[in-house]
Amino acid sequence: KHRDPTALLHSRQPATPHHRPPHRCLVLRMLSAVARRALTGAIQVVRGCGFLSSPAMVPRSGHQTLAAAPLPAVQGSPGVRQAQVLDHKRMLQVEWDDGSCSLYPFAWLRDNCQCPLCTLQSAQARSLLLTDLDVHTGMDQVQLSDNSKVCITWPDHHRSEFEPEWLRKRCFSPEARQARQEKLFLNEREFWDSGLQIPMADYEEVLHDDKAALAWLMALRRVGIVYLKGASLEQGQVARLSQRIGFLRLTFYGHTWQVQDKPSANNVAYTSGRLSLHTDYPALHHPPGVQFLHCLQQSQQGGESEVVDGFHMAELLRREAPEAFGILSSLWVDFTDTGSDYCDFFVQSKNRIIDVDGEGRVTRINYNNATRDSTLDVPLDQVQPFYSSLKTFVEVMNRPENVFAYRMEPGDLVTFDNWRLLHGRKSYVSNSECLRHLEGAYLDWDEVMSRLRILRKQVYGDS
Amino acid sequence: KHRDPTALLHSRQPATPHHRPPHRCLVLRMLSAVARRALTGAIQVVRGCGFLSSPAMVPRSGHQTLAAAPLPAVQGSPGVRQAQVLDHKRMLQVEWDDGSCSLYPFAWLRDNCQCPLCTLQSAQARSLLLTDLDVHTGMDQVQLSDNSKVCITWPDHHRSEFEPEWLRKRCFSPEARQARQEKLFLNEREFWDSGLQIPMADYEEVLHDDKAALAWLMALRRVGIVYLKGASLEQGQVARLSQRIGFLRLTFYGHTWQVQDKPSANNVAYTSGRLSLHTDYPALHHPPGVQFLHCLQQSQQGGESEVVDGFHMAELLRREAPEAFGILSSLWVDFTDTGSDYCDFFVQSKNRIIDVDGEGRVTRINYNNATRDSTLDVPLDQVQPFYSSLKTFVEVMNRPENVFAYRMEPGDLVTFDNWRLLHGRKSYVSNSECLRHLEGAYLDWDEVMSRLRILRKQVYGDS
Repeated sequence: KHRDPTALLHSRQPATPHHRPPHRCLVLRMLSAVARRALTGAIQVVRGCGFLSSPAMVPRSGHQTLAAAPLPAVQGSPGVRQAQVLDHKRMLQVEWDDGSCSLYPFAWLRDNCQCPLCTLQSAQARSLLLTDLDVHTGMDQVQLSDNSKVCITWPDHHRSEFEPEWLRKRCFSPEARQARQEKLFLNEREFWDSGLQIPMADYEEVLHDDKAALAWLMALRRVGIVYLKGASLEQGQVARLSQRIGFLRLTFYGHTWQVQDKPSANNVAYTSGRLSLHTDYPALHHPPGVQFLHCLQQSQQGGESEVVDGFHMAELLRREAPEAFGILSSLWVDFTDTGSDYCDFFVQSKNRIIDVDGEGRVTRINYNNATRDSTLDVPLDQVQPFYSSLKTFVEVMNRPENVFAYRMEPGDLVTFDNWRLLHGRKSYVSNSECLRHLEGAYLDWDEVMSRLRILRKQVYGDS
Repeated sequence: KHRDPTALLHSRQPATPHHRPPHRCLVLRMLSAVARRALTGAIQVVRGCGFLSSPAMVPRSGHQTLAAAPLPAVQGSPGVRQAQVLDHKRMLQVEWDDGSCSLYPFAWLRDNCQCPLCTLQSAQARSLLLTDLDVHTGMDQVQLSDNSKVCITWPDHHRSEFEPEWLRKRCFSPEARQARQEKLFLNEREFWDSGLQIPMADYEEVLHDDKAALAWLMALRRVGIVYLKGASLEQGQVARLSQRIGFLRLTFYGHTWQVQDKPSANNVAYTSGRLSLHTDYPALHHPPGVQFLHCLQQSQQGGESEVVDGFHMAELLRREAPEAFGILSSLWVDFTDTGSDYCDFFVQSKNRIIDVDGEGRVTRINYNNATRDSTLDVPLDQVQPFYSSLKTFVEVMNRPENVFAYRMEPGDLVTFDNWRLLHGRKSYVSNSECLRHLEGAYLDWDEVMSRLRILRKQVYGDS
């Protein structure tokens, strides 16, 4: 009757030959000892309810989604061979030791003078006021110092010095701009479907090891979901994990919130009903970027989790039904949320279900059918096209080949991108003796990315 | 030597005849007794530093900006005279007692069935799943019940009932949509310049009186700035005021933050230097919507405050220099903020200095010259146009006719729209015996608007 949980775990792991991770490439490891301990714990707790998890429902651990893209190699920046004033263009041309050239506009150089008068060093912030900047400045003189700094004298005799590496990092070439963009915001997303090999990590390791924490956040950004095992079975673990990053985001549902079947529920999540695929809190104009859900107690029957990759689904829709994509990415839909929890609230928003930036790239999914307002502020002739488009989108995201399903066990903690993923759960049988209980918390991407950058600097010395 | 502060106050008030506010029109009152007490208090404290405020610098109280736009009269909604199924359009036509007609698409009616199966009453949220909605549904039958509800029978025998008033509120006419929009988000902004008659209110009254609190928030939305007098001279008042709304927004600078001249300042604000006009925190992708600043101690010399109406300035720029407006509303500019405070942080954003929505309406100003990144990720040929455009914008906002200046005294608390206003301060002489000290806090507009809607409902019974 009691199957060996370690056998169960091993059967899920693909028989990949043991290999060392590539140089400078982070891998989220599934330490078998830790995993064994966590899984045993989970089954011990759940066994009291006469339940054994179905192997098919347990998230699979795999390798292809676990590896972070290697960072660009830190090159010793080349020195400056020559610096030349191009007066007619009002630019400085810097020729590097490797023969390449970069151009820097005078106004930009003056604006970014690093001297103590122009920059508050302790804050690394500009103290030069824009009213004091001559945006049409000339340049009196440029020299290379002995330590190969670029030294500029301005017409008002002010002097600026620039380190070659500092200049090189800020060069205006399209390639440099692209590389910086990716480094700062990690724009590359890996799309997935029901075949997702979910990135996994150990909860305590993420808390205590910088490399593990960095790998976690890199995968969270790239894949959109990371599964942590081995959290203790007490409330407070989502708060603890958010402190690892910085702080959580308080909302009207509290600092953290308890997903349980509650009388007079102020949210459909606080019932035992099925939750169709949704993002959390589209009733806010800036919905939480990241969500943590920690399983403290699972139901005996039902309550399985589902997720889809919303960015992937939006691209499928764009390909298969461009008109529907056009409507959902342009119509502003009302969402509403009223009630009382942390305090009383009456929240209203207008959001596009598929948010796109100026270039048409999908940046956020905003969709929760429960809080979609009965008020629909669109012209009458757009009502039917809206419903048809939404229906098509929901059909795409509900295709079995797109949905990744799993069942959380006590001690599991899932972290995911709430701007990208839609998540749901099957209905469950509520049982007062063994009440299903998840604890959740929100964070914002700005804070998460801040921690990611700091960890990358600490782990790699990468600035 | 000691001028009578009440005389000083009275001289600032225009000799307007006493008049009753119009019906249902809120007025922020400047109770003279309260003002006298507050101003006396301020001067008593400051007098110890040998300082007397200049009358010209004290914010003026006036009437034209204080009145909230009257709310649309609550009409007894007309009843339904007739309801007719337009099968070919798949719409229901409702004819009202006043002879007007409204059309409601079948799909929308079915989607918004208010029965306990389709709506979770306790959350006022939709429990009907989109997968269970037939967006091409027909309609079997429509009837008017005795209490004049519209009763619909659907082909699957499901029945829906709609209150006339509920339907009327959600009708799809352009006028109804416009009115709802304004009611929910109060889109109307009143532009101002140096002649601003700053809305004022009493701090304790706002805390304890719902009408005063509503008037405060309405003016904050409409004018963008409201000055509160009479806060006590202890830390914690901005937190207390944020609890009146709901909760404050934690950032890397803490729950609240102390604006003082600090050694090794991690922000230019924490020096005694001049701060040019800026919005706070454009290094976040979602900067705080509302800012509170409470004066605990003013400097003996300098430290006067300045504000401009950024939405107004952007419109001036659009008119006077459309190219500059085009550039600042389309170029994504890097902002950065690194350091340690609540915890360590390394924040990066890309924001447009003038944020506009799809229709080109200005929605947010994002500009702080101190945290504008030395990295400028724009093509080389756009660097000079960017600097010229920014220079023009800054020149517009610094024109004396556009800047409203005031001097905060201890006990004053200014509340303003950080998405709309730019604020600054003059440099001051730092004095360790009388250290200038403001305490600040942030909130987001979603939470502020939520409280505003609740207060409006409480004060007016307006749903």
